[in-house]
Amino acid sequence: MMNRQIVLASRPEGEVRPENLRLIESKVPELAEGQVLLRTLWLSLDPYMRGRMSAAKSYAKPVEVGEVMVGGTVCRVAASRHPGYAEGDIVLGYTGWQDYCLSDGKGLRKLDPRQAPVSTALGVLGMPGMTAYTGLLNIGQPKPGETVVVAAATGAVGSAVGQIAKLKEARAVGIAGGADKCRYLVEELGFDAAVDHRAADFAQRLAAACPRGIDVYFENVGGAVWNAVLPLLNDFARIPVCGLIAQYNEASLPAGPDRTPLLMRAILTKRLTLRGFIVWDFASQAADFERDVGSWLRQGKLKYREDVVDGLERAPEAFIGLLKGRNFGKLLVRVAAQ
Amino acid sequence: MMNRQIVLASRPEGEVRPENLRLIESKVPELAEGQVLLRTLWLSLDPYMRGRMSAAKSYAKPVEVGEVMVGGTVCRVAASRHPGYAEGDIVLGYTGWQDYCLSDGKGLRKLDPRQAPVSTALGVLGMPGMTAYTGLLNIGQPKPGETVVVAAATGAVGSAVGQIAKLKEARAVGIAGGADKCRYLVEELGFDAAVDHRAADFAQRLAAACPRGIDVYFENVGGAVWNAVLPLLNDFARIPVCGLIAQYNEASLPAGPDRTPLLMRAILTKRLTLRGFIVWDFASQAADFERDVGSWLRQGKLKYREDVVDGLERAPEAFIGLLKGRNFGKLLVRVAAQ
Repeated sequence: MMNRQIVLASRPEGEVRPENLRLIESKVPELAEGQVLLRTLWLSLDPYMRGRMSAAKSYAKPVEVGEVMVGGTVCRVAASRHPGYAEGDIVLGYTGWQDYCLSDGKGLRKLDPRQAPVSTALGVLGMPGMTAYTGLLNIGQPKPGETVVVAAATGAVGSAVGQIAKLKEARAVGIAGGADKCRYLVEELGFDAAVDHRAADFAQRLAAACPRGIDVYFENVGGAVWNAVLPLLNDFARIPVCGLIAQYNEASLPAGPDRTPLLMRAILTKRLTLRGFIVWDFASQAADFERDVGSWLRQGKLKYREDVVDGLERAPEAFIGLLKGRNFGKLLVRVAAQ
Repeated sequence: MMNRQIVLASRPEGEVRPENLRLIESKVPELAEGQVLLRTLWLSLDPYMRGRMSAAKSYAKPVEVGEVMVGGTVCRVAASRHPGYAEGDIVLGYTGWQDYCLSDGKGLRKLDPRQAPVSTALGVLGMPGMTAYTGLLNIGQPKPGETVVVAAATGAVGSAVGQIAKLKEARAVGIAGGADKCRYLVEELGFDAAVDHRAADFAQRLAAACPRGIDVYFENVGGAVWNAVLPLLNDFARIPVCGLIAQYNEASLPAGPDRTPLLMRAILTKRLTLRGFIVWDFASQAADFERDVGSWLRQGKLKYREDVVDGLERAPEAFIGLLKGRNFGKLLVRVAAQ
């Protein structure tokens, strides 16, 4: 049986280009005793993958050139010689950008399609949702009446951050690109305000949307947005640093002067807390997350939106779009029908 | 009776210059009922005073041009019409750069000269000591075997930081200017290593002194030292941001490129915690501080060094020297003999 795989063809310098990724075909090896054959149904595309394409030291090892791109997936067990899995089981895995994959079962988690649409295991009920939940509650610690700001606010993480902030009785201000996304934040998700970062007077609009300053800024973009947020931060503000999508594609540092002293001075005089994290730092809170977010979802208190692209072959272009903010909701590739 | 006062004559632009401060003479007003007349014995000179000379927004309001420079003092009650104080009492106050001052007693604390030399109320047993204690233990949280780095390490705060780190069984590495100070850190204070920031190969020496990286960096200088520390920080390192003396005198930002994205990336990928604080944020821990540091002092487990300048008129030059790292130990002005 033939398998399609998308491999890292070359490391991007600056922006990811289509030629950095390549679709190859190969034969799926024979299923061995103790293995399952997985058919990818859903592939999750997430900003962190940009980091894996680079050789720079980070919290996870990079994908090597020629290797299949990593990624979270929802798969159907197409054949099984493993006692724990039967054909037709739906599992959550980390099997990457490919149609098929063999697994010894390690790291797989069975999903129950009757509990929730299985794709949510890659979004609001999965890594992005848990990133929002743990980063906001452990580091951001929003209190009733405080102002919480999040950028990329219609994305998988940002939309959960803002809604959880509301559930904690904070004021939620979202930053997003374009009027449609901003409208969605306020009208559909119940954010108190939304600001379009593409507006020429973005910094002024953000200030107007935060009349009492910013107490929690959930940082997932960096760059110009961060520069506009910094002067608005209140004393003792908390900044969970979750991602920096605006700078992932930058091959060189911005022009001077070096603004680092401004940041350090703000940290000192405003007594800010900046803390970087990745979701696995809070792995022990998975049960809390599943209980709370699962319950909010069932009660309709938490909404999510998926941006679905059909076909594995379209994953590269969709991923490039994600880094430019072109997606609207949690970006998923439907690799095969369920 | 005539009083000498040092007032802010003009706001410094960049480096503090002698003409930014001016000594004036005036008559001490009549002592009113409910007041004490205080004779300054010791004036503390501390880096934070540089911030008070600037109009830029900070955690405390600036000294206005023409006003007496603020500062912690130890004073003798020269005359009293206040029921709580008798002539000859020694008190800790915040009466600033002057020979005499009237007080209604608010904010004064009586000192017992039999307990400890009264000047220590401005140093190891006072604000600088408590800054070291609370910042290191609350934010730095050093664990046995971890590496703690502190700059300005022979200063009032830095020397306590390194010694408390040792008492918590961490490895202490001090950064200081010049061979004498470095020798003192290792030979007198028991630091595990000391690195001269004036060395041309400072960054390499610091790396060599921290073979297992840096787990806690107590930030009180900023600038070039911080740039050398950043690549050595371990995952999950904690950085209490207490001061930035290297940048207080800078009138403009350093030349580009803008290194902010490097810092943000390090925060994210290493999951650093940077947190600014001032000592009063931890005011509720004063009793713990006095108990612990008092006991360490009595047991000889904590040492301190004072750099004493004689005469109020020499305070400006001493303060300018402090900002350049010329002092060796806690800088004090002996305004009058005890």
